[in-house]
Amino acid sequence: MTVETRIEHDLLGDRMVPDMAYWGIHTLRAQENFPISGQTLASAPRLIQALASIKQAAALANNELGLLDSSRCSAIVAACVEIRNGSLHDQFVVDLIQGGAGTSTNMNANEVIANRALEIIGSSRGEYRHLHPNEHVNMGQSTNDVYPTAVKLASWFGVRNLIDAMALLRGSFSAKAEEFSEILKMGRTQLQDAVPMTLGQEFGTYALMLLEDETRLNEAAALICEINLGATAIGTGITAHPAYAALVRDKLAEITGVPVETAIDLIEATQDCGAFVQLSGVLKRVAVKLSKICNDLRLLSSGPRAGLNEINLPARQAGSSIMPGKVNPVIPEVVNQVAFEVIGNDVTISFAAEAGQLQLNAFEPMIFYSMNRSLTHLTAACLTLDENCVRGITANQDVLRGYVENSIGIVTALNPHIGYHNATEVAIEAHRTGRGVYELVLERGLISKERLDLVLQPVHMTRPYSPDHSDIPA
Amino acid sequence: MTVETRIEHDLLGDRMVPDMAYWGIHTLRAQENFPISGQTLASAPRLIQALASIKQAAALANNELGLLDSSRCSAIVAACVEIRNGSLHDQFVVDLIQGGAGTSTNMNANEVIANRALEIIGSSRGEYRHLHPNEHVNMGQSTNDVYPTAVKLASWFGVRNLIDAMALLRGSFSAKAEEFSEILKMGRTQLQDAVPMTLGQEFGTYALMLLEDETRLNEAAALICEINLGATAIGTGITAHPAYAALVRDKLAEITGVPVETAIDLIEATQDCGAFVQLSGVLKRVAVKLSKICNDLRLLSSGPRAGLNEINLPARQAGSSIMPGKVNPVIPEVVNQVAFEVIGNDVTISFAAEAGQLQLNAFEPMIFYSMNRSLTHLTAACLTLDENCVRGITANQDVLRGYVENSIGIVTALNPHIGYHNATEVAIEAHRTGRGVYELVLERGLISKERLDLVLQPVHMTRPYSPDHSDIPA
Amino acid sequence: MTVETRIEHDLLGDRMVPDMAYWGIHTLRAQENFPISGQTLASAPRLIQALASIKQAAALANNELGLLDSSRCSAIVAACVEIRNGSLHDQFVVDLIQGGAGTSTNMNANEVIANRALEIIGSSRGEYRHLHPNEHVNMGQSTNDVYPTAVKLASWFGVRNLIDAMALLRGSFSAKAEEFSEILKMGRTQLQDAVPMTLGQEFGTYALMLLEDETRLNEAAALICEINLGATAIGTGITAHPAYAALVRDKLAEITGVPVETAIDLIEATQDCGAFVQLSGVLKRVAVKLSKICNDLRLLSSGPRAGLNEINLPARQAGSSIMPGKVNPVIPEVVNQVAFEVIGNDVTISFAAEAGQLQLNAFEPMIFYSMNRSLTHLTAACLTLDENCVRGITANQDVLRGYVENSIGIVTALNPHIGYHNATEVAIEAHRTGRGVYELVLERGLISKERLDLVLQPVHMTRPYSPDHSDIPA
Amino acid sequence: MTVETRIEHDLLGDRMVPDMAYWGIHTLRAQENFPISGQTLASAPRLIQALASIKQAAALANNELGLLDSSRCSAIVAACVEIRNGSLHDQFVVDLIQGGAGTSTNMNANEVIANRALEIIGSSRGEYRHLHPNEHVNMGQSTNDVYPTAVKLASWFGVRNLIDAMALLRGSFSAKAEEFSEILKMGRTQLQDAVPMTLGQEFGTYALMLLEDETRLNEAAALICEINLGATAIGTGITAHPAYAALVRDKLAEITGVPVETAIDLIEATQDCGAFVQLSGVLKRVAVKLSKICNDLRLLSSGPRAGLNEINLPARQAGSSIMPGKVNPVIPEVVNQVAFEVIGNDVTISFAAEAGQLQLNAFEPMIFYSMNRSLTHLTAACLTLDENCVRGITANQDVLRGYVENSIGIVTALNPHIGYHNATEVAIEAHRTGRGVYELVLERGLISKERLDLVLQPVHMTRPYSPDHSDIPA
Repeated sequence: MTVETRIEHDLLGDRMVPDMAYWGIHTLRAQENFPISGQTLASAPRLIQALASIKQAAALANNELGLLDSSRCSAIVAACVEIRNGSLHDQFVVDLIQGGAGTSTNMNANEVIANRALEIIGSSRGEYRHLHPNEHVNMGQSTNDVYPTAVKLASWFGVRNLIDAMALLRGSFSAKAEEFSEILKMGRTQLQDAVPMTLGQEFGTYALMLLEDETRLNEAAALICEINLGATAIGTGITAHPAYAALVRDKLAEITGVPVETAIDLIEATQDCGAFVQLSGVLKRVAVKLSKICNDLRLLSSGPRAGLNEINLPARQAGSSIMPGKVNPVIPEVVNQVAFEVIGNDVTISFAAEAGQLQLNAFEPMIFYSMNRSLTHLTAACLTLDENCVRGITANQDVLRGYVENSIGIVTALNPHIGYHNATEVAIEAHRTGRGVYELVLERGLISKERLDLVLQPVHMTRPYSPDHSDIPA
Repeated sequence: MTVETRIEHDLLGDRMVPDMAYWGIHTLRAQENFPISGQTLASAPRLIQALASIKQAAALANNELGLLDSSRCSAIVAACVEIRNGSLHDQFVVDLIQGGAGTSTNMNANEVIANRALEIIGSSRGEYRHLHPNEHVNMGQSTNDVYPTAVKLASWFGVRNLIDAMALLRGSFSAKAEEFSEILKMGRTQLQDAVPMTLGQEFGTYALMLLEDETRLNEAAALICEINLGATAIGTGITAHPAYAALVRDKLAEITGVPVETAIDLIEATQDCGAFVQLSGVLKRVAVKLSKICNDLRLLSSGPRAGLNEINLPARQAGSSIMPGKVNPVIPEVVNQVAFEVIGNDVTISFAAEAGQLQLNAFEPMIFYSMNRSLTHLTAACLTLDENCVRGITANQDVLRGYVENSIGIVTALNPHIGYHNATEVAIEAHRTGRGVYELVLERGLISKERLDLVLQPVHMTRPYSPDHSDIPA
Repeated sequence: MTVETRIEHDLLGDRMVPDMAYWGIHTLRAQENFPISGQTLASAPRLIQALASIKQAAALANNELGLLDSSRCSAIVAACVEIRNGSLHDQFVVDLIQGGAGTSTNMNANEVIANRALEIIGSSRGEYRHLHPNEHVNMGQSTNDVYPTAVKLASWFGVRNLIDAMALLRGSFSAKAEEFSEILKMGRTQLQDAVPMTLGQEFGTYALMLLEDETRLNEAAALICEINLGATAIGTGITAHPAYAALVRDKLAEITGVPVETAIDLIEATQDCGAFVQLSGVLKRVAVKLSKICNDLRLLSSGPRAGLNEINLPARQAGSSIMPGKVNPVIPEVVNQVAFEVIGNDVTISFAAEAGQLQLNAFEPMIFYSMNRSLTHLTAACLTLDENCVRGITANQDVLRGYVENSIGIVTALNPHIGYHNATEVAIEAHRTGRGVYELVLERGLISKERLDLVLQPVHMTRPYSPDHSDIPA
Repeated sequence: MTVETRIEHDLLGDRMVPDMAYWGIHTLRAQENFPISGQTLASAPRLIQALASIKQAAALANNELGLLDSSRCSAIVAACVEIRNGSLHDQFVVDLIQGGAGTSTNMNANEVIANRALEIIGSSRGEYRHLHPNEHVNMGQSTNDVYPTAVKLASWFGVRNLIDAMALLRGSFSAKAEEFSEILKMGRTQLQDAVPMTLGQEFGTYALMLLEDETRLNEAAALICEINLGATAIGTGITAHPAYAALVRDKLAEITGVPVETAIDLIEATQDCGAFVQLSGVLKRVAVKLSKICNDLRLLSSGPRAGLNEINLPARQAGSSIMPGKVNPVIPEVVNQVAFEVIGNDVTISFAAEAGQLQLNAFEPMIFYSMNRSLTHLTAACLTLDENCVRGITANQDVLRGYVENSIGIVTALNPHIGYHNATEVAIEAHRTGRGVYELVLERGLISKERLDLVLQPVHMTRPYSPDHSDIPA
């Protein structure tokens, strides 16, 4: 099979490019240089859409500044709109893991947009004298302002998706908190029996944890709205029109709906990865929490006969290829693993951010690659945890009640009434003899039965309570 | 030598305690159980002061609620004030690395305060029937609300110290930015010559990076003002008076000046380590930035003859035990290392936070141990970087100017005037022949000399510039 | 379009499966449960081949033990051989990131093999009464011994590929060491000028670093040859024939050529992830070294005019979308980033390994996912570094020589002859005046010219040398 | 109070040093430069002893080579012997966290040894013309070979201590394995009931895990026996006598008993931190395992009434300041936390190792600081886990037996006899009805009672078993 080719030229000489390709010589070289992960830009549609949005905004700004004629501008805009709508993503063929600080990503975008725009104005792909990837599509831009801005935009949308998924999961935890609000259970600290609470309180906690993390994500997302478009090579804005930065920002905000702002100091903004480190830190926080929640769910549903067996996770698949009837907590387990991945990604991002030198961080592609996986996998994890697990959780009320009735820990509630010393003695005897706290306290005459019953009422053990302030027997 | 002893009693039986000790049997057992790091609570004065502040606030609140008589309250308060002023810190002998979720730290505090208070009311150490570590000093409290609150308070003050140190360092960078504002230099991306900038812009960037991080620290500090005092064992507030949580919070705010707030949901707040993970993530961010800055300082001062040699760091000590006259960048190097430590601590904290189970995180002592080192070492690093390095930095103006004059990168400034294609040809020839861009451009007749001189003026290369909008020759 | 379906049944009920699918109901449920990364088992051919090898070995062993009839055995073996040769990989559709400790991976393999074997014996896909995924393909096995064994086999081959790639890279460094063996240059410590060495010595170091790491990898690979086949569910070997473990191991060694050994204690081997942690630790070591080497290459090639400019990396692509003529060290940069990823993966693997509970580690899929990326990306990174960078490196001999001639650091060589004190004075004056060490030493009459020339001969400065033992003038 | 002082001189000028101090001007400046952690070299006696051993070996080698007279040699040796025996450690006052690649540590040692040696030969401290820290104590050495060698020696002894502690712990686990060898219990995978095993098997696993890790530690320790003494500044051995490297190595081996070997390539050995990364990776492995074991111990002892309650950890201290009678697993908890610290330290060490540039890694002080903490704390953790926990563990046999009798998981043992399909049906019914497997199997007539009893014998369920090979009823 013969492939039709065209010849393209760059700094290093001539190369043949498949004529069907919308990408060009820069992309060709990058493919040869970076055969690392096999995951191309095409697997990150949010990044491609962000690039197209930026190129569109730049063309409009340059046109308005009189630097780009309307014909070329229209063609570039039209090409960008197509890409933002999902076209030509398969032409983004450079590996996500790449050297060059994102130059190959930017050039892949420049080339695809230029060649599509060339078609639109009636030229052929490769006839760059009519519309040039660098001169026109990349006008007034540098990889060093385009790439970080694209990463920020893509991450911003990724964060939004994650927050939406977390909100769904949170809603399910809240619903369970309501459903379980009257079910008494033993609270545990350090895996040892502590004092009573409700199962609703336990699930309500998970909902609140998620809510707090959503707030933190929103704050971190605000930081990545600060962009450095107009910085060009190192932030000095060399070759950029003085009015360009503000204009392209406004266009970009309009196109994307993202409240982007131009950084105060573009030199700082061009080399600084602080906002990525911050966002990754918050994603790590989300991961830590999700993992803790899933650890709890797996623990509470352990058994069915040699475990805590307090709750039931919905059965999702046969648990074992050898043990008949076994059902495992596979959904929380996969969430745990995503959490571990995110925590590792955070270390990768720390390394990449720390390695930046002087006026640029050359390692932003790894930051994007890691951040994007964290965002995408966390979102998927929240959704499967919600749909395939939390919504179907049920409580084993008999088991839960039995633990409380059998517990020594309820003696804590008696501290204010019989004193820490007496309470300790009761606890020791209960532990030694296997007998119940209730009978032991009465047997020792430490408190009246009426008062004891009052203090041990669930409603009094599961929130602050002071019988001294009530009209009760002593 | 004989040591006078007294006998104390707990759940496990009797033990002899040195009579001189203000600590008691619980502390004794903890010392035996946790001989890990040799670093005791005494090495963390901020934590001791935080504990004393909480115990003072609790005593006042309990007194106001009618649960603690004024005599005992006064004695406890007096003991706490002494400790906050620096007394008896040597009595906090438990290892910072400890099991038990901080119980031993809390009990060490309870015992020291009780024994000092006993002295104050005229009793002897150990006569707990008059004033008891658990019944009175720990009244209405649990380790599970006291310890995390103490860690938060201590961290809050630690963050304040760090921000102060960063502000000093930032001031020095700003001063240098001003001092170097007219010195032209080559900017570099990916360690390759890029385009011109001023040395002042380079140092101004470092100042701004620090300023942004100070802002992030302030935000993270606000999160750790949310406390769970009143939660007692698991957040249900069992044994606590309904009015206690609000009252003790007000007292604590008054005593410490920290704007503490009671968490909305004490069950969530008792088990959640999110605020610590967040703060540690921001400390990691600070570390990443400081390390990047120090990498730059070491690179820019490399040489003196076989390096960049753009700036001079002040000589602080002989650099080598073998190479005469060698001076090394020892101050940035120590800051780099602190940064590496902080990044590692963040991983430790992630592990500790993730490992929390059900109603409590038992691993908060390691969180405190790691966070405290991060805060303390970062603060020290900023101070030594400020005093022993940045303030004394000087510029090698000849070297800096030479790089610019000799540079190929300035051809970028000509892009809008001679086009990317022509500019590339000039760059290639300059690289091949070793000749200068200035002469090559003129030789090729690509631009008039007047316009060339104008475009290459430093002021035009170090910020956005459009000669088309000026009244200049073409 | 209608899809022909068949009905399959499991613990949870009936489901329709596309009739064309070789996978079955267990795989179907897993796809629904784990829509996480989009990267399926098909993207990890080494793992699929390892699974097929194990299933083949098990069938042969069970047949030899009289537990599996020869007809079914032959069909299973034939199916496995096809898969090992690359067939049906597209039928491995479960996400690599999955809960269930690998059960879904094992069941996907069981189902594909069973259905292909059914075809071979003339039955239809889904007619499991003739040949059953669990009863026959999984006979005597559990996910808990199959999955870790498959992960080990796949990793073993991955390590072999990596070692091969490292050996190629090492060869290129060695060739450069030879090529540059006579080129004198300044060595640097702490980025400050130190003492002379040859460029060959510098490159020889990189070769040796790689050689040592290859040795470490071989050691780590030996550890993952210890397998737990025969352990079944928890290592007790329940349901397994007493002779099975030894027999299946021998078959597996024969099929794969890997020197697998059965662990001494299968219970320990079933829950322990130590060998993975060890291997990942060594991969992290490799990453740290490669990153250090690439940092050096980028530093040594910095410039061309405002950097060290000692060596030239081959130009691989235009470096900038805005700066004409700029060429960047894109290949080392991509290697750095892979290194950062591997270091982060190591943290992920630590988390996953630590999270194992009791008789099994449920998080091995994340261990495999991370380890596999580390192995694959490191291998690719070594290959591109070798082919696209190291082989084409050239030296700027004039620059290198100039640094030595201009250096103060050579004064160190005079320590044994003029003393540390005098040498320091010379160094200070050289630094202050900009003059050369050679003339200053002679001017001060500290040593004769003949002796000075002798001591400063390159051959004498770049290895241990004692002129006192030579017949030379003093 | 007046302090007698003496004046010392270095590259930067004169400074007054307390006359009582054995340290000198270099140490003084280092104290001022590095006020970071407050933890001085004195807190790392292994490092001080290693330094003294090296200095002693160097003096002996230089004397034998005719470079150092016997009088000075004897004095230096005597001073070193004193220090190795524990004297003058308080004179090692530099912070462990320091810039300068360890130069300040080396100079602190040089100065203390020189001043003590001066006393021994009858001179006064500071009279360096008689015996000079650099000229004589540091003769033929550089920080760049002394410091890494000292770190390796110190770490070697640290590893030995750790292995000893692990062996003790392992012995206790083995003893428990023996003690519990007949106690049947349910094994668990993914926290769900799996199949039976013995408690002895469970504890034997922990012993074997430790044994394997001891082996890995021994291997890693062998790697750090490779030293670079004789390398001097960058590995070229400049100023070192050609015979020095071999001679000093032999002396050092004799003095310390450590089988040190000289690296083949000293340039590589001087810049490479691979052996530290490897050792830290193995320490991380140990940490991961210890943490897993402690997680299990805490889980198995959870309760006492609302947990698994299978084993009892010895009560070590009152568990709560509020909950009477509560006893917590404080010893495993502290071990978990040390493990988290070690894992974080490993990341720190990765960062420090990766940051090495060209001929030296300037960040070895942080490597030592982190490694030393890992070694020391892990050793302490093993000892307290052994003494204060494992030795006193007891089993709750009734609870353990009850779980097995009540279990559904034993149905797995019937797979080979009734088939996976039938076994699944039984499991489902048992789960649904709460009835026992034993009775359900008999009720369905799936197997004879004799055979059932045989298969379900503990000895047959806890190891591979094939009734077909026995003379039993079918």
